[in-house]
Amino acid sequence: MSEGFQQKFFDHVDKNQALYIERLAEAVGIPSISSDLENHLGDVNQMIDWTKAHIDRLGGKTNLVVNPLNSDKITYPPILLGEFHVDPKKKTVCVYGHLDVQPAEKDDGWDTEPFTLVEKDGKLYGRGSTDDKGPALSWLWIVEAHQALGVDLPLNIKIMYEGMEEYGSEGLFETIRDEGKPGQFLDDVDFFCISDNYWVGKTKPCLTYGLRGLAYFQVGVKGCEQDLHSGNHGGGIHEAMTDLVRLMATLVDTNGKILVDGVMDSVKPLTPEEEALYESIDFNVESYKEENGVKNVSDKLLYDNKKDLLMHRWRYPTLSIHGIEGAFSGKGAKTVIPAGVKGKFSLRLVPDQDPKQIEKCVKAHLETEFAKLQSPNKLEIELIHGAVAWLSDPKHPNYQAAARAVEKVYGCEPDYTREGGSIPITSAIEEATGMNVLLLPIGACDDMAHSQNEKYNISNMMNGIKVLGVYLHELGKIQGPKPSDCKCIPLTQEELMVPGAFLRGFKCKCEM
Amino acid sequence: MSEGFQQKFFDHVDKNQALYIERLAEAVGIPSISSDLENHLGDVNQMIDWTKAHIDRLGGKTNLVVNPLNSDKITYPPILLGEFHVDPKKKTVCVYGHLDVQPAEKDDGWDTEPFTLVEKDGKLYGRGSTDDKGPALSWLWIVEAHQALGVDLPLNIKIMYEGMEEYGSEGLFETIRDEGKPGQFLDDVDFFCISDNYWVGKTKPCLTYGLRGLAYFQVGVKGCEQDLHSGNHGGGIHEAMTDLVRLMATLVDTNGKILVDGVMDSVKPLTPEEEALYESIDFNVESYKEENGVKNVSDKLLYDNKKDLLMHRWRYPTLSIHGIEGAFSGKGAKTVIPAGVKGKFSLRLVPDQDPKQIEKCVKAHLETEFAKLQSPNKLEIELIHGAVAWLSDPKHPNYQAAARAVEKVYGCEPDYTREGGSIPITSAIEEATGMNVLLLPIGACDDMAHSQNEKYNISNMMNGIKVLGVYLHELGKIQGPKPSDCKCIPLTQEELMVPGAFLRGFKCKCEM
Repeated sequence: MSEGFQQKFFDHVDKNQALYIERLAEAVGIPSISSDLENHLGDVNQMIDWTKAHIDRLGGKTNLVVNPLNSDKITYPPILLGEFHVDPKKKTVCVYGHLDVQPAEKDDGWDTEPFTLVEKDGKLYGRGSTDDKGPALSWLWIVEAHQALGVDLPLNIKIMYEGMEEYGSEGLFETIRDEGKPGQFLDDVDFFCISDNYWVGKTKPCLTYGLRGLAYFQVGVKGCEQDLHSGNHGGGIHEAMTDLVRLMATLVDTNGKILVDGVMDSVKPLTPEEEALYESIDFNVESYKEENGVKNVSDKLLYDNKKDLLMHRWRYPTLSIHGIEGAFSGKGAKTVIPAGVKGKFSLRLVPDQDPKQIEKCVKAHLETEFAKLQSPNKLEIELIHGAVAWLSDPKHPNYQAAARAVEKVYGCEPDYTREGGSIPITSAIEEATGMNVLLLPIGACDDMAHSQNEKYNISNMMNGIKVLGVYLHELGKIQGPKPSDCKCIPLTQEELMVPGAFLRGFKCKCEM
Repeated sequence: MSEGFQQKFFDHVDKNQALYIERLAEAVGIPSISSDLENHLGDVNQMIDWTKAHIDRLGGKTNLVVNPLNSDKITYPPILLGEFHVDPKKKTVCVYGHLDVQPAEKDDGWDTEPFTLVEKDGKLYGRGSTDDKGPALSWLWIVEAHQALGVDLPLNIKIMYEGMEEYGSEGLFETIRDEGKPGQFLDDVDFFCISDNYWVGKTKPCLTYGLRGLAYFQVGVKGCEQDLHSGNHGGGIHEAMTDLVRLMATLVDTNGKILVDGVMDSVKPLTPEEEALYESIDFNVESYKEENGVKNVSDKLLYDNKKDLLMHRWRYPTLSIHGIEGAFSGKGAKTVIPAGVKGKFSLRLVPDQDPKQIEKCVKAHLETEFAKLQSPNKLEIELIHGAVAWLSDPKHPNYQAAARAVEKVYGCEPDYTREGGSIPITSAIEEATGMNVLLLPIGACDDMAHSQNEKYNISNMMNGIKVLGVYLHELGKIQGPKPSDCKCIPLTQEELMVPGAFLRGFKCKCEM
């Protein structure tokens, strides 16, 4: 991006702030909750159609890929593929985002209606504002700005937006696998960029090179045939809830120590090199506590120093108990003996942990603990979602282009960080295409994705559009062959230890 | 009731079956859910007004007592008092019922819409059909039948119907205390009759002389300040759910053994006399299993013999875990770390167990267990509802009148049974007035009160109206002074052991 164009681009973005907010409000107003398709499939589809209409309006090519997991029993939303094609000789970036959101109800503890975007003190409150509608839509406004300013896009842009991210990205993995085949949509993509995670702090941008995986379990105990009155029948039956809470109590202790045998065996040991990385990261434990709602009444976290806290959020596995399906969950009192209950818990996995192996450990553990109870009830354990952890390299040209964009907008180098969350498609894309995936977060650490009062700072939105715009131009400047034309030569174990020793994906050298 | 009138009365009832069903359908159609007044106060009030209109139509006096617990913050439904006055020299029976219902949604597992009465195979399905709209309304149809047949009621009838029974009878206890004072509504009542429980079996009627009490607890653990994303923050914080499931796992074991120190200390020892009572009760363990949805996959109950099973449902305390408020409770997966969670559990109490003493034991237990966790989170324990157990005497004239009525309708003597459930106002009435309270169940054991597919057999409805009608005439025949004119002379411990040694309440002799 020339300095002249860059200024014009920044000015254009600044002038359109109100429009971007209005459009985000429209998008947030569509309650595209993917975990409840029974009630919200129409909303997810509407959100996808709304976005498609914008791409169409800007002259892009669009294609709604019928969800490959559709069946007689269930219909999922399609995957939206879009394309702004400039020149076949230019390189191609594919940007991913998702248009669905987590569930939200005002009663959960929101200060405002979750599906009405509300601006307050420079923040835009609403479900999906930061996760991921705001960031995903940025790309469209960047294309629009180029058209308004009469400047060609510096490389081809492909768009892949889904509507099932908050519920296991159902159908996307199959689509990525199919579209990654020779001659298909993803085959000529040179770089991928995903903006679906968050800064480590509130003010300094970062680029993310690692993510934890996920193994989400449902442990069901089926007792009596139907819900019963605890007065009439209590004392005569083996209650399912009794068994379930006793099982769930064996999973993890108050200090976060996972009590399931074998889970920690596959965790990569910490090297001094990795440990050193944590020293320099711009992260303040006290601010983290103040700004994320993580404090408890005793003002205590599990770790009070930056290094341990970040490592336990990023590079060690954790186990969280989320809730119970089938039991009484309302306010007040209900004297019910639930017939069957399903406990929900998940582990965040780290590199080298295989969800299938973790599933074996968890099943063995729960079966052993259940046997100890000698209960005549029925145990059912299910791995609902599994995703491996992901690790990339900050020296890849894709990352370096983003780093230069951040410097041009924010005036500082980004931190290179990892994340505790899971974005399973990151690994899926890398595996299907062999190309490098960049995680370029736009939202701040206190945006409260998945929680009450989710918000998106106006400043993050505006700077995000600028960073992504400049990033495109930095990518366009990269010399040499198109990575997608290279043949992937797998790196040796030694080569893998040398940052930057690649061109294609993280694990490949390029051979023309 | 003369034999001639009895036959006319039975014929009249039989001819009006369709009308009774139609009116019950109207009543069931009003979703008077008292545990959710925010959404259903209007429905509870509507149900009370509907019932009041029937009493008014039949020429009764009515009075809506403003709920004494109303405040600036909350409005509860009123208590409906009604009266069919015949003659001040005649004795007076007061009948109690409730017009509110438990929550119900089709999604809970109902085969039909819960608030639409559906007739199938001689059964009337719908929320509140058997608990307690069907039985409560019987009294009105009995009065109506007497009017239609031109026969005076054999004694004065007072009616006390509430709208908060399924949520702690809020305001009723204060009303009973006030109305039991000299010159007030309950002061001249000689007998009380409540039809709000169920037969022990499906075919043989019973009279109930004992009920368990209730101590319903909410144990809250407050962790972080708001719900968090388990990927972003898992590993850094002390999670509230981890603490809560560990606490709840210490309460009771798979075999129903209560693990809270001190709770069993106050349980009355079993005497050979009491044990003998259980031998003769018409109760079949296999039928109980077949008809109540209590079976698990292994076809096992906690006890496989009648005596142990009944004793553990009636005369021993139990502890049931009902659910958790504040955690994820939906289908599928949500990767949330709940900020604060409230576990719900309750103990059914037996005679001599004091809810306040049980509260002390439970609090001490949970505080000790929480201290073991060394968690920096905050523990909050609350006794939401407490009610003592209740025990009466089957030889009281009130019970004997009912027994004769059952014989005349069903041709057999009723069983004398106890119940596992709690009807806290039973003790409250006895304490406030000193008069005997009869529990005369109408519904069958498989009516599924509080559960999915609640139903009321048409035969139980029809015979119930007949039994209650004959019972009034049997009560009217009782010779001697009006119990309400007696002074209560407390019985000695020895006298208490002799069945029938009383006239006023269970614990009083009569002195004029």
